[in-house]
Amino acid sequence: MNPGLVSGFFFTMKKIEHIGIAVKDIQAASKLYEKLFKAGPFKEELVEGEGVKTLFFHMGESKIELLEATTPESPIARFIEKKGEGIHHIAFEVEDLVSEMKRLEAEGFTLLNKEPKRGADNKMICFLHPRDTHGVLIELCMEIKP
Amino acid sequence: MNPGLVSGFFFTMKKIEHIGIAVKDIQAASKLYEKLFKAGPFKEELVEGEGVKTLFFHMGESKIELLEATTPESPIARFIEKKGEGIHHIAFEVEDLVSEMKRLEAEGFTLLNKEPKRGADNKMICFLHPRDTHGVLIELCMEIKP
Repeated sequence: MNPGLVSGFFFTMKKIEHIGIAVKDIQAASKLYEKLFKAGPFKEELVEGEGVKTLFFHMGESKIELLEATTPESPIARFIEKKGEGIHHIAFEVEDLVSEMKRLEAEGFTLLNKEPKRGADNKMICFLHPRDTHGVLIELCMEIKP
Repeated sequence: MNPGLVSGFFFTMKKIEHIGIAVKDIQAASKLYEKLFKAGPFKEELVEGEGVKTLFFHMGESKIELLEATTPESPIARFIEKKGEGIHHIAFEVEDLVSEMKRLEAEGFTLLNKEPKRGADNKMICFLHPRDTHGVLIELCMEIKP
């Protein structure tokens, strides 16, 4: 049996795409993760819509994303103010973002954006409200194909 | 060139082994993650030394570990009291736990246990102090071989 087939639907959540970590100083944090992983980041990107600078490290099939706020209104600035630096979200890669958003909304999850939006690292993304997920901010993401 | 060879040392951090999520009610949280992943947990385990009940889900090459405190002194109980439910730690799989502990201590990281200790899911583990890692509690873990 194809393990992707559960209750007649295609199983679309494939892997941990990345873990997002909110930091105050992305250069200092980058040095630390370089020591930890013995490898440097492979990508740096500014996501203006979210008010963040990002840096990505590879780790197995997943990535570690460091996030630094570029404006005081950035969700990352507000997160750090409230909870301090630390893990901000987990992103799961999905096969089909729109159908997964529909499925999860029907299951009672709250979508933080009703339409897919552009994220870092060439992805379309959607966040689920952490009040439905025991405090975990979950991102669904799908690679933008050319 | 073998990508494992960096500066003459073997690169021992291999993947995100799991993400640990602290919850108040592991059965309620399990139902939620079953909806999210369309798949149930594959393992349930009591780790008496840590005062936790655990439940594991597969996600790609990684796992999601739900953690519920079994005593008020459990680190999970204290975490929830201070920060609320949410992501508690990231665990990276290492090739050789003892040599990785030595390497990271020499790099300035603080080991929360000086000797490897037994964790859930047939692992020997060591935690790094989050004050050195921008607020992220990092676990190193290695499968116990028969």
